[in-house]
Amino acid sequence: MDADPTRARSARVDATREAILVAAERLFAENGIAAVSHRQIGEAAGQGNTGAVGYHFGAKIDLVRAIARGHGEPIERRRSRMVAAAGDSTDLRDWVACLVCPTTEHLARLRSPTWYARFTAQVTSDPLYREVIGEEIRASGSVARIVEGFDRCLPDLPREVHRERGDISRLLIVHMCAERERALADGEQVTRPTWEAAASGLIAAIVGLWQAPHDT
Amino acid sequence: MDADPTRARSARVDATREAILVAAERLFAENGIAAVSHRQIGEAAGQGNTGAVGYHFGAKIDLVRAIARGHGEPIERRRSRMVAAAGDSTDLRDWVACLVCPTTEHLARLRSPTWYARFTAQVTSDPLYREVIGEEIRASGSVARIVEGFDRCLPDLPREVHRERGDISRLLIVHMCAERERALADGEQVTRPTWEAAASGLIAAIVGLWQAPHDT
Repeated sequence: MDADPTRARSARVDATREAILVAAERLFAENGIAAVSHRQIGEAAGQGNTGAVGYHFGAKIDLVRAIARGHGEPIERRRSRMVAAAGDSTDLRDWVACLVCPTTEHLARLRSPTWYARFTAQVTSDPLYREVIGEEIRASGSVARIVEGFDRCLPDLPREVHRERGDISRLLIVHMCAERERALADGEQVTRPTWEAAASGLIAAIVGLWQAPHDT
Repeated sequence: MDADPTRARSARVDATREAILVAAERLFAENGIAAVSHRQIGEAAGQGNTGAVGYHFGAKIDLVRAIARGHGEPIERRRSRMVAAAGDSTDLRDWVACLVCPTTEHLARLRSPTWYARFTAQVTSDPLYREVIGEEIRASGSVARIVEGFDRCLPDLPREVHRERGDISRLLIVHMCAERERALADGEQVTRPTWEAAASGLIAAIVGLWQAPHDT
């Protein structure tokens, strides 16, 4: 019971927005961004008013951005702490861990089943929406520090190989997390029992691919 | 002009089937498997009869299988030749090349724009249809030879790390090809100018990740 009508209304709005975000994330994760309509999201969020999603979030890209940011903020906080702890390290493993662990630790803390890893895979596969993830990354001070860390560990790596292996690492993290999340949701067997163990295997592999001889 | 009515009819059927396969591959690649209906495929293939897709291919999984097989056969032929040439090699690079090049060479030979890489990424991301790719792989004699090749090069790698790195390699090949195909289709800049050069960078990275120290 809340005697203050403004506060009660604000709590209702928050609950509606949260229900829409949760429903949209799940539908986007399962079906892709393009395939899901505002109406379907509204229905899944229990909103009788067909305009509710547009009223609270505007266009689809704003909704995608709101979901990405809701996860991006706690992930960025973890990453900032890890980057600060890595300092001036010249151990490549430290910097690869800064790429992998903020996301896997975030996934490990969410209530199961999670949708965020598959949502991210869908966003990055969609030319219309992938830029949303690009914005999150450019807004992150800690990602720039990680790139400097890689430069410090691998000073002689040609720029284009650096970029290629950055693309490979990003793809691997996004799709390994999405595949593991899907396997967990479907009750399939997974190679690694925990997100922490999955991160450990992924870090070892990514360190290896950066240190491999290159062909240019 | 064909004076034989049976042969003329058979040619028409072949043309219709081919038009359906091409339209379905493009729609599946762009929108995901689940989001595309038989009706949409029929329309995109210029079929007035709404039952044409079902008549020629049956259920959606049969259509997905027909598309996968149409590419899988030439890819398997290339892979068999490469595996035979690799013989008893203990150079890991040879076996990684057998994983990567049959697909990238196939993509390089298709008329541009290609859809196959994105089609494959969509199929492997869909729990209902991914098994189709599993069937193709299990039916391939050459994939089993590649696994033996990896065992010969890395005899001490624990079984679960072998499986994990196999998963990582597969994901990387599928999604790097899909991302490159999409960038080419959208006229974006790509890191490597040709499929051959892209394969070379990918092989170097995958060799590195298999040779990395592991954590178990």
